[in-house]
Amino acid sequence: MSEPGEFELIARYFAPLATHPGADGLRDDAALLLASEFKQGLVVITDASIAGVHFLPDEQARVIAQRCLRVNLSDLAAKGARPVGYLVSLSLPPHLTEEWVAGFADGLSENQQQFGWSLLGGDTVRTSGPLTVSVTAFGQAAGDGVPRRSGATPGDDLWVSGTIGDGFIGLRLAMGEFSDIPPSAAREAETHFRCPEPRVDLGARLAGAGLVKASADVSDGLVADAGNIAAASGCGAAIEAALIPLSAAGRYLSGIDPAIIARLATGGDDYEIVFTAEPCAQEEIQRRVQR
Amino acid sequence: MSEPGEFELIARYFAPLATHPGADGLRDDAALLLASEFKQGLVVITDASIAGVHFLPDEQARVIAQRCLRVNLSDLAAKGARPVGYLVSLSLPPHLTEEWVAGFADGLSENQQQFGWSLLGGDTVRTSGPLTVSVTAFGQAAGDGVPRRSGATPGDDLWVSGTIGDGFIGLRLAMGEFSDIPPSAAREAETHFRCPEPRVDLGARLAGAGLVKASADVSDGLVADAGNIAAASGCGAAIEAALIPLSAAGRYLSGIDPAIIARLATGGDDYEIVFTAEPCAQEEIQRRVQR
Repeated sequence: MSEPGEFELIARYFAPLATHPGADGLRDDAALLLASEFKQGLVVITDASIAGVHFLPDEQARVIAQRCLRVNLSDLAAKGARPVGYLVSLSLPPHLTEEWVAGFADGLSENQQQFGWSLLGGDTVRTSGPLTVSVTAFGQAAGDGVPRRSGATPGDDLWVSGTIGDGFIGLRLAMGEFSDIPPSAAREAETHFRCPEPRVDLGARLAGAGLVKASADVSDGLVADAGNIAAASGCGAAIEAALIPLSAAGRYLSGIDPAIIARLATGGDDYEIVFTAEPCAQEEIQRRVQR
Repeated sequence: MSEPGEFELIARYFAPLATHPGADGLRDDAALLLASEFKQGLVVITDASIAGVHFLPDEQARVIAQRCLRVNLSDLAAKGARPVGYLVSLSLPPHLTEEWVAGFADGLSENQQQFGWSLLGGDTVRTSGPLTVSVTAFGQAAGDGVPRRSGATPGDDLWVSGTIGDGFIGLRLAMGEFSDIPPSAAREAETHFRCPEPRVDLGARLAGAGLVKASADVSDGLVADAGNIAAASGCGAAIEAALIPLSAAGRYLSGIDPAIIARLATGGDDYEIVFTAEPCAQEEIQRRVQR
């Protein structure tokens, strides 16, 4: 039996994922979003991932699908936006088979069930280069406008939504390094790298309450992303190394070599939210985080 | 002097193109679209182009930029949508220099001036593979809903907005074939391939007037795209070879070998609109086309 063509693959694996009515079951290549779906604004994000750069070349298809969506969900979360739908543009090398596509669609499906959004459309092309997955994600703004990178002012507190450095540690673990980290701590960091947990709910709660002044997700590293906020806002940022929250793996490594904090804070792929807020909002933020 | 980094390239070449207020001058990686901008619906399209597949590997950067936007504008046109903005995701091979990026941005800029839309955001990654340009385009629906592929019914007329086959002929000319075609006809076909003219205004006028029942753009070839309409609508389609409109180059070639019509009608890259309408709408459509 010959390999199915693009239209057959779409009908078989992707059309069932297009649950949003505006996708017309992928019979059309245009999606239609209605103004009534996002009265407070539609947040749009795009992020491309390349095999060998953003994920391991031999990673499972379903994990790649999950990771590519989660990276974009993390961007939406930083803007306080609730996920609505996404487009996925696939550049497939010739060795990827129908089985790979089926696994990739499974990963998308699991993700949709967890985050309550829908495939809206996409494009598939064949490439002589590495697998490239480009996702465009759409979210509903939680409040009037969205927290920008550019909204910080001098005197703001700088917050981060979780531990920093697990993206860096997880990648190294997957490459066979850091083998002395205790197994359970190592597993946690590796999961964080392969399948990050976007802070969708937290982001929407904080932005919806108007508590966030400036915000970004930690994809390039805490130092770079906090630096982007500072640069876009025309101010500086100070990060105290001792106050950066670390996972068990991060604490283990920095117990052996305290200087590793510099690498954890610049490594990237953490997919937490880094944001600024008025100092007087501290209690309110803690309360909403714990809820 | 070292090559500028991604942020510097964005600030220098792309930020000036982000004229839409929702792009926040590209200081943020999220764009915000307001419901008031598209009361009748937001049409979303994505299309990826790869060097060596969708354009010649040695094509000029500004022509690549133009072509990638025009291909997406053609998709919007087929849905009757007026262009609002776009995201561009670039996978750049290492040999592409700052000069290349500058030329690419020039092409985007020219296109924006002609079609009155704005860069909204994007992503740039480095790849070991061929240059890949993935564009996501946003348009304002012209009427209530959009003409789908799936809206045709038996008895509809099948229309096409212009000549068919120039995409095919233009590619062959660029590859050194068909050298006997008279120069002015050849130039016209090659321009059609390198820099197609999307039917933005016509598409919006016809769809806005409610004259279009089902619609697609001719990217995969007239036969395939009319076939997609038929398949999505659950009916058949008949195309009479003698009625397919041809350019001077197409007429020249079919004068020598009438059988070439099969290749012109399946070649693709024409970026005309193929649509169906009630037979009683014929006069009204002709009137609006001529206006």
